[in-house]
Amino acid sequence: MSYQAPIKDMLFVMNELANLDAISALPGCEDATRDTAEAVLEENAKFVSGVIAPLNHAGDKEPSYWHDGQVTTSKGFKEAFRQFGEAGWQGLQHPQEFGGQGLPKLVGTPCVEMLHGANLSFALVALLSDGAIEALLTAGSDAQKATYLAPLVTGKWTGTMNLTEPQAGSDLAAVRTRAEPQGDGTYKVFGTKIFITYGEHDMTENIVHLVLARTPDAPPGVKGISLFIVPKFLVNEDGSLGARNDVQCVSIEHKLGIKASPTAVLQFGDHGGAIGTLVGEENRGLEYMFIMMNAARFGVGMQGIGLAENAYQQAVAFARDRVQSRDVAGSSGPVTIIHHPDVRRMLMSMRAQTEAARALAYVGASYHDIARHHEDEETRAAHHAIYEYLVPVIKGWSTELSENVARDGVQVHGGMGFIEETGAAQHYRDAKILTIYEGTTAIQANDLVGRKTLRDGGKVAQHLIAQVRATGTQLGETEDTAFAAIRQRLEQGAADLEAVVAFVLANAKSDVKAVFAGSVPYLKLAGIVLGGWQMARAALVAQQKLAEGNGDAAFYTAKIATARFFAEHVLVQSGALRAAIVDGHASVLALAEDQF
Amino acid sequence: MSYQAPIKDMLFVMNELANLDAISALPGCEDATRDTAEAVLEENAKFVSGVIAPLNHAGDKEPSYWHDGQVTTSKGFKEAFRQFGEAGWQGLQHPQEFGGQGLPKLVGTPCVEMLHGANLSFALVALLSDGAIEALLTAGSDAQKATYLAPLVTGKWTGTMNLTEPQAGSDLAAVRTRAEPQGDGTYKVFGTKIFITYGEHDMTENIVHLVLARTPDAPPGVKGISLFIVPKFLVNEDGSLGARNDVQCVSIEHKLGIKASPTAVLQFGDHGGAIGTLVGEENRGLEYMFIMMNAARFGVGMQGIGLAENAYQQAVAFARDRVQSRDVAGSSGPVTIIHHPDVRRMLMSMRAQTEAARALAYVGASYHDIARHHEDEETRAAHHAIYEYLVPVIKGWSTELSENVARDGVQVHGGMGFIEETGAAQHYRDAKILTIYEGTTAIQANDLVGRKTLRDGGKVAQHLIAQVRATGTQLGETEDTAFAAIRQRLEQGAADLEAVVAFVLANAKSDVKAVFAGSVPYLKLAGIVLGGWQMARAALVAQQKLAEGNGDAAFYTAKIATARFFAEHVLVQSGALRAAIVDGHASVLALAEDQF
Repeated sequence: MSYQAPIKDMLFVMNELANLDAISALPGCEDATRDTAEAVLEENAKFVSGVIAPLNHAGDKEPSYWHDGQVTTSKGFKEAFRQFGEAGWQGLQHPQEFGGQGLPKLVGTPCVEMLHGANLSFALVALLSDGAIEALLTAGSDAQKATYLAPLVTGKWTGTMNLTEPQAGSDLAAVRTRAEPQGDGTYKVFGTKIFITYGEHDMTENIVHLVLARTPDAPPGVKGISLFIVPKFLVNEDGSLGARNDVQCVSIEHKLGIKASPTAVLQFGDHGGAIGTLVGEENRGLEYMFIMMNAARFGVGMQGIGLAENAYQQAVAFARDRVQSRDVAGSSGPVTIIHHPDVRRMLMSMRAQTEAARALAYVGASYHDIARHHEDEETRAAHHAIYEYLVPVIKGWSTELSENVARDGVQVHGGMGFIEETGAAQHYRDAKILTIYEGTTAIQANDLVGRKTLRDGGKVAQHLIAQVRATGTQLGETEDTAFAAIRQRLEQGAADLEAVVAFVLANAKSDVKAVFAGSVPYLKLAGIVLGGWQMARAALVAQQKLAEGNGDAAFYTAKIATARFFAEHVLVQSGALRAAIVDGHASVLALAEDQF
Repeated sequence: MSYQAPIKDMLFVMNELANLDAISALPGCEDATRDTAEAVLEENAKFVSGVIAPLNHAGDKEPSYWHDGQVTTSKGFKEAFRQFGEAGWQGLQHPQEFGGQGLPKLVGTPCVEMLHGANLSFALVALLSDGAIEALLTAGSDAQKATYLAPLVTGKWTGTMNLTEPQAGSDLAAVRTRAEPQGDGTYKVFGTKIFITYGEHDMTENIVHLVLARTPDAPPGVKGISLFIVPKFLVNEDGSLGARNDVQCVSIEHKLGIKASPTAVLQFGDHGGAIGTLVGEENRGLEYMFIMMNAARFGVGMQGIGLAENAYQQAVAFARDRVQSRDVAGSSGPVTIIHHPDVRRMLMSMRAQTEAARALAYVGASYHDIARHHEDEETRAAHHAIYEYLVPVIKGWSTELSENVARDGVQVHGGMGFIEETGAAQHYRDAKILTIYEGTTAIQANDLVGRKTLRDGGKVAQHLIAQVRATGTQLGETEDTAFAAIRQRLEQGAADLEAVVAFVLANAKSDVKAVFAGSVPYLKLAGIVLGGWQMARAALVAQQKLAEGNGDAAFYTAKIATARFFAEHVLVQSGALRAAIVDGHASVLALAEDQF
């Protein structure tokens, strides 16, 4: 079976947890009503299920390939991207003045999730274009905006992010690509960039490369990096395409997963210099790139959630269909494997983690919308700070769990899962990139510790913990065993997270390595506590709806059961994470290098 | 860099934890002295590093392929297997009367680990032959032994296990393959078997298929299954090869990993019937197959450990070599990534889990040797029971952790890990089969709950827990913080495991599904507690050696640090597992099928 967007769950989260009504009350977001959101999600779901999802497995089997500098993408990708652009999906969250629909992130996010859920490799090209659009909106000149934004927003062209170089990896301080001013406002760019997603392809007539490079007098390190637009084809004043620029794709990578998406090595300036224009001011490239990266990081989190949802759906379908062995409680013959307790445990684990990550991400999107659109500056600032705290958690935690979910998806299939034609193995392979690109989980965790916890003295973290506790208190107003279990684990989780934040604050100066030894466990702890918080909120809403006799009882009882599972099987790990961070740092660092 | 057998660690475990001296004092094991064991390991390490390991990545890139019923194995495999057989490695643990070396399992096991560590795909053919040899030794007639054992033991031929059928999966009750007696002592076999590892290949002149099938009057279900030898080529009385038998390889699978090892679909009897002979008695096939499977399950556990070791070595080499970003505590320039705390955390996690699993497996092997060779029947029986308890743990836990270790191995490599040429991704793909074949982790866990815990009323489990506690007490005799941490986590782990065993015993009759909902978490809990126990024992030995000023201080301090890491980062999870099992079963089973 192929991917079906979980619209009902998405709308539940949007309406009940992320407060879409409040978002649509913001200035500029008036169109984002419940009805509009539902209509957008349904239309998008139809498109991704009908057009994009069917290309996923085929693209894995017949990846993009390189020949003589050209990349031919997998069959159907070009036509699908044309339809994607024309239907306005690339522009969903982008300004109307450049051809977009100007919808808030809360409405755009489920559509992003669907696209990634249907086909990670395809969706990447849209993700990268989104990042380029964000960067140009923020830092581009009026002329650059006029030239590049409309084609990007409407999917006529695509965008790329050119950061990584062979010697540098994630360390942007080591960037060597040079940009030499020509005196006419343009620069000539020389250098090699690697791991450039959709750095070359045949899906659109032009590609807008955003490239980090150094000008001749730039200071060393990250303070000397500038951002340039280097289009594949130069653009004439009337917007038509001019000469081919001096940027060549010299190869693409043979990868573990996301095989349909070409990952290019790009060579700039081998034939005289690639012509580029500066974005914003010199030496502020890193700052602009962070705008792209923050958007992209949130997007990669959505990739994890979309992929997890797809893996879950496929595992459920298989478990409902596959007949094998008797029921452990007795049966007259073999039963479908969904009756076996450990298959149930895996499906519940996949489901609960996916729902928790989705809820946290959508709530995060609503903070973003408030931060952007609210009339009150303090409210904007407060929500911006929370969104900033959540981005590394949404990126890091959602992708880490997507690996586990994809892994369980294979496991539910048994031996069939190991055979490539089943498709479960593709999720397992595809998932592995998500914890690596746009900053590994460790890089997200460093961001969470450094910029997001230490810089404000733990203020945002403590604010969130207080909100978790408030939900814990609400849970206490019932005697139901499920709610008691959720409350117990949530309050313990809050206490554990609080202790870890205190540990981070207390030790960052005196023993920075001890703090960073626990950075990834801290990120995971934040994920399960904040995700568990959303699951608890969902259970409370479901309880209310059931009490009112309002709506689909099976849907709401499942919400409560899934929240309980999350509490008892995932959130319950908070104590071990806390202990590993607070008590376990010495053993992380105990060996000398030559003892490994 | 390529795989290097960790001989020093292997010998430490054999000598200090698995008590090789006691094994070599057993009748029939006199040759297995420390010196002999060391010589065997060194010789084997030389062979696998020199001949087998170099074929691993190449075999992944150019897998075995099928054409017109023939399977051509990856380049170099045929010649390597000839050398493997001629050097006596296939026969290491098998009786001297059939050309083997008759060494105990404790000495054979490190060699098995090395072979798998070097090249999982290659090692599989030896693993399957081992299983066939075990089954024939136990249940074969004298004539069958005379015909088949020597060629199998010397690597002239190979063996296979034919269990799975398309409609049956792991459910052997559903086996349909028929065996019709011909009145001359032979049978004609008809049916289809799938997932047959090395079911067809070009490495030896004959293949000995051991096949589960039903005779015409057999009762239904597992009580009506018999075991047959169906050789690829019939064997004449003088041992020479006769006619080609009616078994055909109709295809091989396109798999996620272990690509060099052909996984065959075998068709028996399409041209009149494949000629086979009955092994042992009719309808006892399952019992004999379990002999093969128990040996193979232990072997698959060693695959997990070997693969984990290889992934660890590769990650360490990369982390020592790759320069990126400054030290978080400050440095004048970029440092090798082994200086980054989260890379350390991953390397320690990989190392600690691998060492713990190895120690538990080797100790398990020593129980096997005592069970087989000790003069006292009661001692044999007691050790046999413990070994039987440990087999599903060694298989299930070692393979589950190998997935995590392989995953971390990719992660340490960052973006390079996702590129296939690095080799880290191959471990990630290869590892995924280990938790599936020879019985999924859930099947191991069912075995642990049913046959290994409930059947003896938890006696063996409680005996092991008492031994863990005794080690906890020994740890208490020091004031060292590392030992205090190890003791705390080990004693908590013992208490958690004891509570879970009590839960299993108390609820198996009244609520069998609740018990099986926690079967895999129980298996993992048993793994970390018993693995943690071995790590604690290792730390005690290391402490003693350091106190004596005896040997390599860096090696022994690393043992203590690694044991502490295991306690603080792995064993610390025991409480969450206990809670998930004892408190969390209701939420595993709460949803109706149509709520998924």
